[in-house]
Amino acid sequence: MIIIRGNPVIRSDRRGKNQNMLNPGPAGKLKECLMALSSEAKELYLNSTVPVLDAVPSPLQFHRDWVAPNKPVILKGAVKHWPAIRKWSHYYLRDKIGDEVVSVAVTPNGYADAPNGNFFVMPEERNMKFSKFLSIMEEPENYPGVFYIQKQNSNFTEEFTKILDDAAHEIPWFSEAIGKEPDAVNFWMGDHRAVTSMHKDHYENIYCVVSGFKDFILQPPTDLPWIPYKKYQVAVYKEIGSGEFKIEENHQTGSVPWICIDPLKPDLEKYPQYEHSNPVHCRVHAGDALYLPSLWFHHVRQSHACIAVNFWYDMEFDIKYNYYKFIENLCSQEVQ
Amino acid sequence: MIIIRGNPVIRSDRRGKNQNMLNPGPAGKLKECLMALSSEAKELYLNSTVPVLDAVPSPLQFHRDWVAPNKPVILKGAVKHWPAIRKWSHYYLRDKIGDEVVSVAVTPNGYADAPNGNFFVMPEERNMKFSKFLSIMEEPENYPGVFYIQKQNSNFTEEFTKILDDAAHEIPWFSEAIGKEPDAVNFWMGDHRAVTSMHKDHYENIYCVVSGFKDFILQPPTDLPWIPYKKYQVAVYKEIGSGEFKIEENHQTGSVPWICIDPLKPDLEKYPQYEHSNPVHCRVHAGDALYLPSLWFHHVRQSHACIAVNFWYDMEFDIKYNYYKFIENLCSQEVQ
Repeated sequence: MIIIRGNPVIRSDRRGKNQNMLNPGPAGKLKECLMALSSEAKELYLNSTVPVLDAVPSPLQFHRDWVAPNKPVILKGAVKHWPAIRKWSHYYLRDKIGDEVVSVAVTPNGYADAPNGNFFVMPEERNMKFSKFLSIMEEPENYPGVFYIQKQNSNFTEEFTKILDDAAHEIPWFSEAIGKEPDAVNFWMGDHRAVTSMHKDHYENIYCVVSGFKDFILQPPTDLPWIPYKKYQVAVYKEIGSGEFKIEENHQTGSVPWICIDPLKPDLEKYPQYEHSNPVHCRVHAGDALYLPSLWFHHVRQSHACIAVNFWYDMEFDIKYNYYKFIENLCSQEVQ
Repeated sequence: MIIIRGNPVIRSDRRGKNQNMLNPGPAGKLKECLMALSSEAKELYLNSTVPVLDAVPSPLQFHRDWVAPNKPVILKGAVKHWPAIRKWSHYYLRDKIGDEVVSVAVTPNGYADAPNGNFFVMPEERNMKFSKFLSIMEEPENYPGVFYIQKQNSNFTEEFTKILDDAAHEIPWFSEAIGKEPDAVNFWMGDHRAVTSMHKDHYENIYCVVSGFKDFILQPPTDLPWIPYKKYQVAVYKEIGSGEFKIEENHQTGSVPWICIDPLKPDLEKYPQYEHSNPVHCRVHAGDALYLPSLWFHHVRQSHACIAVNFWYDMEFDIKYNYYKFIENLCSQEVQ
């Protein structure tokens, strides 16, 4: 049986009208020039690791050093003053919001919104009381599937209003730096097996860790030519009982392009061009924040039951985006 | 007779190691993508005229709205408080610095550092008392040639120290915005026939007009594919008496690439690709300043005896530069 779901909003690439269809990578003079683009990026301004700042700079300095040049940075202790850092025990959360119904992504393998065979598979979205979700986090072995609160619809300000003031509605110095309020604030909590597959967002992102840690793999926008995409039929996981999941196609939605390489175990025989790319790894600890610039590719994992809140601010569709789209156009080709 | 001069520093393109050699323009898919780059630039962020601000914004706002997105803007009244605006009459200047020896560019036609036939011709650099230069400005018909103080070696802070405090050593809000002191401050004064041929600089530029007006033609960096370059043999003008000038080759310096189209009368039969480019014209009046972003092509003229001071700040060699060089590489080809 095929269940037809509503059209999913694949938010992260919703502005990607002209998605990169590069496969198996560019050749000839174009390839040479793209390789020079990547190598000069490293010489000119990229760091081999994500820099760490011990104090939050002024909004102007932050804009000048990180936002304008589109460079990621970790801000040590940026949210250590949030009451959430000391308050958000399971006991406290159960007490405060245990009866709230939240939307939880459930998958058999931890991969929500990710390729599986020929499918781009979205999670089963299950509504449950937050207390139930906490129980699952505490005894995951008793529940089939991998559970992750990862709904990117500003769920923190929509579903977690009772604990909102323990964290924040915005990151004031960042709002001042880029002259905007956040467009969405998302609450993340989940299993250590849950993985956010590599993708990019059309947002400036401040990712704040409240407890545990997050592990990021980041790749700059100039890596686009080396990151292979494929078209996948959209589908969704559905538990069919006794811990089994099936994949249900969504014919209405059709197909979407998605990154077909796993940066944790890249298949370099199939995608040798990925070798020219420049992944950097970083771990963000509780109390710290990562500035994840717009259009940077990222892959995310976390410690078990890690809690994080991230702030999405609309990006500027300026000269950097203009250049990025040019490269995307140049590298695009139909994918089989 | 060929006079060998010292190697000229062609400052404006001194970082342009891999100069665009595009001629007669790109073709095929590359051309299509470059045309989309230009048209999307217009849709996304370019203005059809240079915007005018009535007040200077905060350093953060200026960085966010203009420097980071690399967009020119006129700042009305930005230097109207300079004593120079009311003080710098010819009478005052003759009195204050009449005996100072300054370096003046002399050409037969107003074009210093510009193509003439197969040559890139630099001006005759003549040292004279400033009082003599003022006399020439007052009665240009009595002197053969076109005279222009245009030496871009921070001549304002080097040669004009006695009137420096009438203007400024820096533009404080701009220094704060980009977090640097100026690298060079240049004094410009000259004949209305003097023209600065189209070129680009690797500087963030604040161009301040003290008296008269300056007329700019500006083209964004994304116009690079449509702006033809040619290689020219370097030469220099030399007056040989009775108002005649000769062009003396400089074999030691060899050849330089320079823009071979005149935006005032573009030869579209020869360079049809220029039609895809996006020139904007603006006039900057006394008391006002133009922010001329790095890598923007510009062509400059002025009212007779116009006085201006410009501040060059080192640009950032960041992701925007990285993308720009990629396009330069992609479009490069050997020029005959």
